[in-house]
Amino acid sequence: MPELRHDPIQKRWVIIASERGRRPMDFTPHAVAPQSEATCPFCPGHESLTPHEILAFRPSGGVNAPGWGVRVVPNRFPALMIEGELGRAAVGQYDRINGIGAHEVIIETPEHHKSLAELPPTQIALVLRAYRDRLADLMKDSRFKYIVVFKNHGDAAGASLAHSHSQLIATPVTPRTVAIELAAAREHFRLKERCIFCDILAQETETRKRIVAMGPHYVTLCPYASRFPFEMMLMPRRHQHDFSTLSDEALNQLAHHLKDVLLRMNKSLGNPSYNFLLHTCPNTRAGIQRAEYWKTLEADFHWHIEILPRLSNVAGFEWGTGFYINPTPPEEAATYMREVRL
Amino acid sequence: MPELRHDPIQKRWVIIASERGRRPMDFTPHAVAPQSEATCPFCPGHESLTPHEILAFRPSGGVNAPGWGVRVVPNRFPALMIEGELGRAAVGQYDRINGIGAHEVIIETPEHHKSLAELPPTQIALVLRAYRDRLADLMKDSRFKYIVVFKNHGDAAGASLAHSHSQLIATPVTPRTVAIELAAAREHFRLKERCIFCDILAQETETRKRIVAMGPHYVTLCPYASRFPFEMMLMPRRHQHDFSTLSDEALNQLAHHLKDVLLRMNKSLGNPSYNFLLHTCPNTRAGIQRAEYWKTLEADFHWHIEILPRLSNVAGFEWGTGFYINPTPPEEAATYMREVRL
Repeated sequence: MPELRHDPIQKRWVIIASERGRRPMDFTPHAVAPQSEATCPFCPGHESLTPHEILAFRPSGGVNAPGWGVRVVPNRFPALMIEGELGRAAVGQYDRINGIGAHEVIIETPEHHKSLAELPPTQIALVLRAYRDRLADLMKDSRFKYIVVFKNHGDAAGASLAHSHSQLIATPVTPRTVAIELAAAREHFRLKERCIFCDILAQETETRKRIVAMGPHYVTLCPYASRFPFEMMLMPRRHQHDFSTLSDEALNQLAHHLKDVLLRMNKSLGNPSYNFLLHTCPNTRAGIQRAEYWKTLEADFHWHIEILPRLSNVAGFEWGTGFYINPTPPEEAATYMREVRL
Repeated sequence: MPELRHDPIQKRWVIIASERGRRPMDFTPHAVAPQSEATCPFCPGHESLTPHEILAFRPSGGVNAPGWGVRVVPNRFPALMIEGELGRAAVGQYDRINGIGAHEVIIETPEHHKSLAELPPTQIALVLRAYRDRLADLMKDSRFKYIVVFKNHGDAAGASLAHSHSQLIATPVTPRTVAIELAAAREHFRLKERCIFCDILAQETETRKRIVAMGPHYVTLCPYASRFPFEMMLMPRRHQHDFSTLSDEALNQLAHHLKDVLLRMNKSLGNPSYNFLLHTCPNTRAGIQRAEYWKTLEADFHWHIEILPRLSNVAGFEWGTGFYINPTPPEEAATYMREVRL
């Protein structure tokens, strides 16, 4: 069973995936082997190579068989285990929790060679529906405090399989980055009774300096204090805290906007590796103090997607200090991407 | 002039190094060219290829000329500028500070092909003296709240020059990772009137499960909640908060311990790329409220060195959540390194 362990100094939970138990010789560097359709576990006809599907969108019937548009399966090498009790324990002065959670893969298309940006908006909308439906389903499980949806595209972003896919991880703790965001948003709301993300949107849509794309429903911008060159944040223009409650229509609109932004990034930067992360609200059904703790959540939090092109190596300075050096001012990055002709 | 910008949601300062102003085409991936002694700016005889030296240890006289054992120079492409006023300003709801700071390079040896681990302990002690002396000098500058000493060894760790060197960056803000550590240590002290690092040392030296090396003065262990495989933390056994006040004798002892640990890591993992970071106390001469704010600093903080082998790719999940998945339990990592025969 994997474990969650708490770092008492950094106030950070870490997953120790002991099942994978890697020894020194396992870390010999090797490139990811390019994968052919013949052996790809995510291609139609190879459904038996994955664990049983959790969700699939199919025009007609069937299960674990071809005919799907988007398919969600458990990760074959999960970082956390779905079965079991949370089991919290002290280890001397330290804290641990059993490695309970969910780790799923969202296969975004039956087509082996198509990237997310190349898919038609209707197909991207299906992917977003899978995110929404899985979020809504996993939020029924009170063991899970948070569910992160993320995507690693390309070698430099940590993708291990070429066939386009996203992942989600449900955890019994709130990840630190999200916890910091939630606390900052709550503090801002407490002082001002306004959403901090809405305030940022107001300033950004007024100055327009850092806007990459602005549609009627969504805006993508390069954050004022971007950590990475060409980092982006995508947000709904109207205040919304919970991705799991979006309508099909809202997801269709988001699909168009997301495709536009990914194409701008690809054209500006030559199809870079990238990571993308959905930050939605935490699971309010988790834990007994949740109702009180997240009292103003609906008003103070605003879901968003971080898009992080992986352009340069990150050195130890960043790992050890949390302090980033970004060589490209976000105003310049936004201008490049905004002015791309699609 | 570079800028420091504050992220209001993540509560994090970022350096926007606008002078480097990188455009999309500058990010085309390329391997670091191996560098020969003939063109290496850090080799003796090439002193004119670096900015003027700030500090050098030479048995006999001379300046910016061969004969040195360790040499400290300004970084030729500094992330922050040493000259100027701090200049704090609001940008709408955002906050910025002029990019004032110091960025120096510590050239660890005149020998082009020797790594830090291969140097004799007397030479490593000289490197540590350079750290100490530069820290002590920069702490006289009240513009700087914190000084990070760090080392990137090898391509995967972000080293851009092969000749063995460390760096330091002095910043007008405390980096977030350090700020979290300082706050956690202070809170622990407030509750218990004990140093959290001393408490950890007590548990670790008793169970011995995660100890890599234990000498009379220093201990290196794999932290209970290690983020990375084979991550290590080196600490003095006696409580000390300020690296800049260490005696030559203490640095000699540290040099022996550090060499031992680096050799254990190199032998276990086949000379991996690694990062190393010194976390010492913040500069108590910076800012007017410092004296009050850091009232218990001497008692609550404990300097330490993080050593992070760079073995596996880090994916977007980690960047976007601050949540790490470590495939090697620290107990196993420590056992490997402890049992290495040197």
